[in-house]
Amino acid sequence: MAPLNADLIGLAGGAAELATPALVVDLDALERNIAAMAAHARRCGLALRPHAKTHKSVEIARRQIAAGALGVCCAKLGEAEALAEGGIGAILVTSPVVTGRGMARLVALNARIADLMAVCDDIAVAARFDAAAQAAGKPLRILIDIDPGMGRTGVSVAEAPALVRSVARAAGLVYAGLQCYAGHLQHIESSGERRNASLAALKDLAALRDRLAADGIAPSILSGGGTGTFDIDPDAGALTELQVGSYVFMDRQYNDVWAGRPPFETALYVQTTVISANRAGLATTDAGFKAFATDAGAPAVASGAPQGAAYFFFGDEQGGVAYDESARKLAPGDVLRCIVPHCDPTVNLYDAMHAVRAETLVEIWPIEGRGRSA
Amino acid sequence: MAPLNADLIGLAGGAAELATPALVVDLDALERNIAAMAAHARRCGLALRPHAKTHKSVEIARRQIAAGALGVCCAKLGEAEALAEGGIGAILVTSPVVTGRGMARLVALNARIADLMAVCDDIAVAARFDAAAQAAGKPLRILIDIDPGMGRTGVSVAEAPALVRSVARAAGLVYAGLQCYAGHLQHIESSGERRNASLAALKDLAALRDRLAADGIAPSILSGGGTGTFDIDPDAGALTELQVGSYVFMDRQYNDVWAGRPPFETALYVQTTVISANRAGLATTDAGFKAFATDAGAPAVASGAPQGAAYFFFGDEQGGVAYDESARKLAPGDVLRCIVPHCDPTVNLYDAMHAVRAETLVEIWPIEGRGRSA
Repeated sequence: MAPLNADLIGLAGGAAELATPALVVDLDALERNIAAMAAHARRCGLALRPHAKTHKSVEIARRQIAAGALGVCCAKLGEAEALAEGGIGAILVTSPVVTGRGMARLVALNARIADLMAVCDDIAVAARFDAAAQAAGKPLRILIDIDPGMGRTGVSVAEAPALVRSVARAAGLVYAGLQCYAGHLQHIESSGERRNASLAALKDLAALRDRLAADGIAPSILSGGGTGTFDIDPDAGALTELQVGSYVFMDRQYNDVWAGRPPFETALYVQTTVISANRAGLATTDAGFKAFATDAGAPAVASGAPQGAAYFFFGDEQGGVAYDESARKLAPGDVLRCIVPHCDPTVNLYDAMHAVRAETLVEIWPIEGRGRSA
Repeated sequence: MAPLNADLIGLAGGAAELATPALVVDLDALERNIAAMAAHARRCGLALRPHAKTHKSVEIARRQIAAGALGVCCAKLGEAEALAEGGIGAILVTSPVVTGRGMARLVALNARIADLMAVCDDIAVAARFDAAAQAAGKPLRILIDIDPGMGRTGVSVAEAPALVRSVARAAGLVYAGLQCYAGHLQHIESSGERRNASLAALKDLAALRDRLAADGIAPSILSGGGTGTFDIDPDAGALTELQVGSYVFMDRQYNDVWAGRPPFETALYVQTTVISANRAGLATTDAGFKAFATDAGAPAVASGAPQGAAYFFFGDEQGGVAYDESARKLAPGDVLRCIVPHCDPTVNLYDAMHAVRAETLVEIWPIEGRGRSA
């Protein structure tokens, strides 16, 4: 069966008719964001391995690679399997895979695509990886995951050399380098604090790199960085590549980080329709907790409602729009676009993205990695 | 391709091996919850039309109907289409459908299944419904949606009679009754306050019913109620049927409402695996914002971690478990089960539920309505 809304493709103004809630991508803005980050990485002399956890989309991964990225990151094995199935051949899985069944899937994926890398932050897990890769008969490339002081994943800088040595001498593994992602620093709203904290974390990483080099086990790849520190991380001289993800879409949370002057454009919206409007200054829409991830507060209304209208969550299925009672009254059927609070987990709620240019629905892109968190 | 984990079906202890994060249903608890609510409704002399927005599953809808429910509710048209596709033939769509394209889908669905009902809270929308149903050639049954004082959807009690008359005389529509759902009262933690507020809202509904009866337009169906007020609503003598949803699974939020002595059992868990454990008293799991809806706070650890362990969100892809440093240390590969904070939007994140009995994976049920919010 054709996807919902497929009959609207190519119709002028058809974007306004989408069954909602619907994820809408501003294709012009998306293309400019992809080009701008590629140019930034080239300017800085860094490779680009954008994080596909943001978009989970084969089409967008292809576009990033066409613009110069050497591959993509995936957060989870299932996401990597989905993108590989769609033809993406260079993938770094950035979260540790630790179970026997997970490793079996990982080495099977390694056999299918040209360039797979996994991360490891534990010596016992590295030994299991080695056994699985040896049994599968193709060496598996490993980045040692370094904790930037966040405590989420990664081995400490102090304990890293022992793990590096263990991976470097494992017959089934190829020691490819280090990963260090400071997820806790990306949304610091003071640019000075964000800069200082990011440079400090990367200074420790650079010291580790130098120590490993002195030991004859220099990392060839140092992968890390995020959208919030995209223009800070290169200055530390530690990373060889950037894992930036959110820049393709941006969101309300990242717009807040740059206080309304973000370096990338908003390219992602949730389109929603007013379904009830029986009270003055209040309208109810069809987009609630199932249409937006709620970890980063409320969406921002981008269009379709009176100036100053505030969006609030009105339960699982609905949103509310509070607006000035003296403004034109919203009515059932009115269409709004909202900037999503947090792009990655919001994209994960939808089966498809609607790529729109000048209010024409150009294409519908499946979100192949949606829900593939396992 | 067989779904992930399908090879584990029937293996004793296989539930512990699931690729995670995974949604796990305790089949014994689910069956007892379904039976208990069916018995409650029978005892109260009320019909049962459970809300499928909670589970979005054909299998669970079938089981509810087999236990005596006269059909199910769906929150959205897409959810209704998905369950109808799976063979569910009696569906009430509880959110207003207002667009022309939505109405076209609704009347097409009305032609396909035996017993479809929609709701309406607006006279202009009712006129569009009438035209769509007349054009389709099969009358559409309508419940007038009444605002219980929440302001989300529904016409006020004062303005309801005019809308009822308009629907009752529309040639394409069948006026089937009223819907009144007090979503804002379900989670009031004081049982006295919850009772008073719920009975007050239903008293207004009963008065409206009597007024309509006096006008010769008595409603035959009065549909409403939720899990939080399941044992309060019948006492008001207003509703003819209950729309309860969450009772099938329960969640941390509803357990809090009953202060640890809930009337239904926890039947839903997210199973998650420790992927990193390099710090004392802290483990990182594979279940974050993409694995749990976050609108109702943190999950509760049900098993797999030391007593008193607290789960916290550690970003999009990961969770954290903070626990007593003197306890047995968690290690990569350890498996935890968590009670979800809020069942409905969490289920909406997953493609499948894993039905488990005594740690054997019995079946994997697709979540047909997942993501079908449009």
